[in-house]
Amino acid sequence: MEWIVRIKLGYRSYDVRIAGGLLEALGAAAAAMENVHQVAVICDSNVAPLYGTRAVGSLEAADVSATLIPFDSGEANKNLKTFAALMDSLLAIEPAIDRNTVVVAVGGGVTSDLAGYVAASALRGLRWLCCPTTLLADVDASVGGKTGINHNTAGKNLIGAFHQPSGVMIDVETLRTQPDDVMKCGLAECVKHGVIRETGLLDFIEDNAETILARDTEVTADLIARNVEIKAAVVADDEREAGRRAHLNFGHTIGHAIETLAGYGKTVRHGHAVALGMVAACHMAVKRGLIEADAAARVRRLLERLGLSVRRKGLDTGKVWQIMQHDKKARGGRVRMILPTMLGQVDIFDDITPAAVAEAVEALAAK
Amino acid sequence: MEWIVRIKLGYRSYDVRIAGGLLEALGAAAAAMENVHQVAVICDSNVAPLYGTRAVGSLEAADVSATLIPFDSGEANKNLKTFAALMDSLLAIEPAIDRNTVVVAVGGGVTSDLAGYVAASALRGLRWLCCPTTLLADVDASVGGKTGINHNTAGKNLIGAFHQPSGVMIDVETLRTQPDDVMKCGLAECVKHGVIRETGLLDFIEDNAETILARDTEVTADLIARNVEIKAAVVADDEREAGRRAHLNFGHTIGHAIETLAGYGKTVRHGHAVALGMVAACHMAVKRGLIEADAAARVRRLLERLGLSVRRKGLDTGKVWQIMQHDKKARGGRVRMILPTMLGQVDIFDDITPAAVAEAVEALAAK
Repeated sequence: MEWIVRIKLGYRSYDVRIAGGLLEALGAAAAAMENVHQVAVICDSNVAPLYGTRAVGSLEAADVSATLIPFDSGEANKNLKTFAALMDSLLAIEPAIDRNTVVVAVGGGVTSDLAGYVAASALRGLRWLCCPTTLLADVDASVGGKTGINHNTAGKNLIGAFHQPSGVMIDVETLRTQPDDVMKCGLAECVKHGVIRETGLLDFIEDNAETILARDTEVTADLIARNVEIKAAVVADDEREAGRRAHLNFGHTIGHAIETLAGYGKTVRHGHAVALGMVAACHMAVKRGLIEADAAARVRRLLERLGLSVRRKGLDTGKVWQIMQHDKKARGGRVRMILPTMLGQVDIFDDITPAAVAEAVEALAAK
Repeated sequence: MEWIVRIKLGYRSYDVRIAGGLLEALGAAAAAMENVHQVAVICDSNVAPLYGTRAVGSLEAADVSATLIPFDSGEANKNLKTFAALMDSLLAIEPAIDRNTVVVAVGGGVTSDLAGYVAASALRGLRWLCCPTTLLADVDASVGGKTGINHNTAGKNLIGAFHQPSGVMIDVETLRTQPDDVMKCGLAECVKHGVIRETGLLDFIEDNAETILARDTEVTADLIARNVEIKAAVVADDEREAGRRAHLNFGHTIGHAIETLAGYGKTVRHGHAVALGMVAACHMAVKRGLIEADAAARVRRLLERLGLSVRRKGLDTGKVWQIMQHDKKARGGRVRMILPTMLGQVDIFDDITPAAVAEAVEALAAK
């Protein structure tokens, strides 16, 4: 069956479609858009031979001219250099692209962030379709319209644009070629959604952990639809992150700092960093008397069962704090964190002290 | 006296203020914005010692922390390399910038295009104030929210964003340090506004040509306010250039091609290229029977009186056509041009032939 979640954003509303084999329907979907005659398919060097060519085949079968633009895979390449190279390739297409040209992103979050920012910037804004191929991209990058790249020294996602796609098509079967560790990164975000909005989702993951890890098509499609609905509700509520959208940063403040310290995914993958960030944030919430120790333990236990990191030694607490202050969500050097007030509910806290962060980060080293 | 033109764009509405000495009021204006504590002033290496330091002084006098970020002047530097360097500087400011940081552009169109795109992209969007210091920037770049950079091989303004400023402050006295040839480039846009919307503006320029060229404060402020009002009306009418905003491209289709052929302003300045483009477009309009030869002659005569180029030999008509097809306003390789249907009124034409363009470009070589 196909799940469809409508993302309601006024005239920029769009559908997230979720089903097995959906990549075959890309051509028909693109051809149904207004004035589409030319598409550029952006994907990384791993995805290009697997799904990039399949996307191009589907587009050409629907009589839409398609050009495949690959880039070297990896978070380390989500930078201005790759952005410039993609722009070079896009602007070299013959016949030349115009404002009706559509960009299609096929791949994980790195690809949708890069391709979405290319689409936002080329000719000051082209339409784009997002075809995520990892669970993390399915439940996170595919909703919200955030696109962008990292800055080599200052940090992650510091350069970019809010640019909503015209549609998202999630082919659940692509998860089968996704490495286990990448799958786990997506599950970290699923747990996050449960903690911030819906304990029922935590129940669902606890009940189906093995089936999910085995990539069962129906169960993962259900999981993805549940998560997209939660993220969509948060985003529709507050598109520009002025308020409640910040709830999605739960686990990401300390998580990003851990990731940055490790040099963007070289040693700590995003999902593991977020898992550590959630454990630390839950620890802080317990210390402040916001939640019971049992609730924190449940989150930690689920993350561990999914194979995610819940402990890490040797973190420099001073550096963690320094990076948190540099985070673009910090305000005037003041650190903001999202902490649970009960499972399924979080709040924004602006009174975070270096000591509380240091204590929580140190606790990550404990058994 | 101070002129204020309100640019009506819903919640992104803002004022364009026009007066002599207005740069001194920048600090007070920034301090009056919500949550402003930190400003980055972007200007080129020529403007930095003249008006960049004055802007910083005004900001600091109003208790707003200000950092001057200069870049090497010139259209040739309006590219991804300078964008990256500005981003590096912006993200290196201590304490780190956050979403309340405001970017101020002080300079000509190159500066507002670059600084506006930096503001659009840093942390996925910072507010910005625009302080134009050339007539061209006053009447063109300051209204419309277009920001962006050139691509080294594919063409001008192909990478960028629509990002409205929070305010525009035009200090008319800065025109006094502007070279004559830069002043003339602005006058080409003023003539354009007259041709596309209001013959009264053509009368005003004809009546005040010498006073304007002498930078009389009151007359130039009046001229700028008239032009900002015309551009604002067109932009408010059609913010995303889907329709009537395209009228502003009058003179720019062939003009851009001439500029591109010459290598971005090395030998043909933007205003001279636009003047040539307007002469060519008027020629085409006469040939199609849209306007009388007298009307075309009036436009050509006024441009010539203002010291703008109205003839050019040796243009490769084939290359001009090729570049026009690459223009981002072209659709599926089809060239679109704006032609006058009478003075003060233009229309969009999608049936432009290479032969008609070649004939008009060849006519530019005639005495």
